[in-house]
Amino acid sequence: MSILAVGTVGLDSVETPSGSATGVLGGSVPFIVLAARYFCEPVRLVAVVGGDFPPQYLDVLRRSGVDLEGLEHNPEGRTFAWEGRYHENMNDRDTLATHLNVLATFSPVLPAHYRRSSIVCLGNLDPRVQLEILNQVERPDLTICDTMNFWIRETPETLRSVLGRVDCLIINESEARQLSGEHNLIRAATAVMRMGPQILVLKKGEHGALLFYGDRVFSAPAVPLAEIVDPTGAGDAFAGGFSGQLSREARLDFDAFKRAVVYGTVFASFCVESFGPDRLLHLSEADIEGRAQQVREVAALPEFERHYRPVL
Amino acid sequence: MSILAVGTVGLDSVETPSGSATGVLGGSVPFIVLAARYFCEPVRLVAVVGGDFPPQYLDVLRRSGVDLEGLEHNPEGRTFAWEGRYHENMNDRDTLATHLNVLATFSPVLPAHYRRSSIVCLGNLDPRVQLEILNQVERPDLTICDTMNFWIRETPETLRSVLGRVDCLIINESEARQLSGEHNLIRAATAVMRMGPQILVLKKGEHGALLFYGDRVFSAPAVPLAEIVDPTGAGDAFAGGFSGQLSREARLDFDAFKRAVVYGTVFASFCVESFGPDRLLHLSEADIEGRAQQVREVAALPEFERHYRPVL
Repeated sequence: MSILAVGTVGLDSVETPSGSATGVLGGSVPFIVLAARYFCEPVRLVAVVGGDFPPQYLDVLRRSGVDLEGLEHNPEGRTFAWEGRYHENMNDRDTLATHLNVLATFSPVLPAHYRRSSIVCLGNLDPRVQLEILNQVERPDLTICDTMNFWIRETPETLRSVLGRVDCLIINESEARQLSGEHNLIRAATAVMRMGPQILVLKKGEHGALLFYGDRVFSAPAVPLAEIVDPTGAGDAFAGGFSGQLSREARLDFDAFKRAVVYGTVFASFCVESFGPDRLLHLSEADIEGRAQQVREVAALPEFERHYRPVL
Repeated sequence: MSILAVGTVGLDSVETPSGSATGVLGGSVPFIVLAARYFCEPVRLVAVVGGDFPPQYLDVLRRSGVDLEGLEHNPEGRTFAWEGRYHENMNDRDTLATHLNVLATFSPVLPAHYRRSSIVCLGNLDPRVQLEILNQVERPDLTICDTMNFWIRETPETLRSVLGRVDCLIINESEARQLSGEHNLIRAATAVMRMGPQILVLKKGEHGALLFYGDRVFSAPAVPLAEIVDPTGAGDAFAGGFSGQLSREARLDFDAFKRAVVYGTVFASFCVESFGPDRLLHLSEADIEGRAQQVREVAALPEFERHYRPVL
């Protein structure tokens, strides 16, 4: 199954209790595609960069085997940039600066061969752009959406239009609380699903993730990690591993979604081990399946059936 | 396997976002024994009450089938009393008043037949009393300990003496962070286990619980509950279900501890559905096993082997 992923490409400057990094490859879509491409060919990227986008980051994306025909270059503009600082708990963060730059006017037109994609993954960006993508794709098998507190607060109506049209929403627990106005996570999930998505994944950081599939619930633990370098992009890497596993299985039943959550967890755990997406660049099948096995052991899950092909 | 449980018996006045209750049966040990007694005979209680202890609460304990020979009556004193108010998130709480009363001078002498108990469950109370119990029991198969932020802060040295002598510690995640000085839960767990206990359970409320058994980890989800009436006693009910399940299995391997965590979770979930221990009074085997089945489904755990006898 093919994957179309839209999102931001940015240059991040990040401080965490483990250190800092300046001008690293960031935004939502690099993490999504760099995870998903281990499972699936083709992965199609839709995003925009400015004239300042470093050629070496373009090389990273090129070498990943991702289809970049949907990557728009805006030579007169500057690339989206974000600066943030994480608190001691590696969970809360302060945004120090956000420069939308070329994102402000981004209005993608999909290449013709992108329009028939099996899985459409709407990474975190302006819901206006997410809607534009939904309006251009032709009957995908599955639509997946991510968002964040900024869009929930600033563009609630556009976001609600998106939610009314997607199959699956992936957000973190605080976003679910914000979106629903409910503190209890089970009530929050019910309220969010009434807005449209029949499948909901609540990411809970070190506490793992909850999958709501219609009226059924599955809980997966996080990989037990004693060291976190930088949480930036973990949620996007989750969405990439999640989408990738679904495409590899080519099944959309509850059990397939459970495994997708496990592989989402696996890629989130790799992501936080480095600044930027470095840790996602050179993973082996043994790395990926070994960590999935670790999640299964921690959750005491039975071994997965091998009804899908190995990692690319 | 017999269980000896020591802890406080109190009169609680509680406000939660769901309502309030005054002078309800509280403290740690009622919740422990009212859960454990579903699995195990005999359950032996050690605690103290004052002259004001309501006869109807004594009846509740008497009718539960628990051995009350270790329940000391101090007619001149007043029963331990606690007043608290829970925040909107049902997790944080403010203590409005604590009256130690008869607890201040409590120094239990175990009845002779209590000394040979298989599982010793040191519920949350002054670690000085926990030590006194450890000094009186004879070679138990398993010692389990609970504590709270107050003792971690106020009596760190006595608590460390207890931790050096118990097999298993059950605390919540914030207590683990406080005790270890580590924010990351995996590092916190490692640090706490270096203090003595080779088995550690970290309770995480709605996020479930983590079991550390030597160098192995198991994660269990919470029961998905849309409605919480009062969280008071949930941790103690967890310890009771946990101890009870281990006594029912009469095994102390990793798999038995995993199931003990599941039954701890089950009893915690019942507990929060009412003020005081009301919900623990009249559970059927179908109630208990049905909810354990619910946890297994949410965690996608394989069905438990039936190598233990049904609930009493």
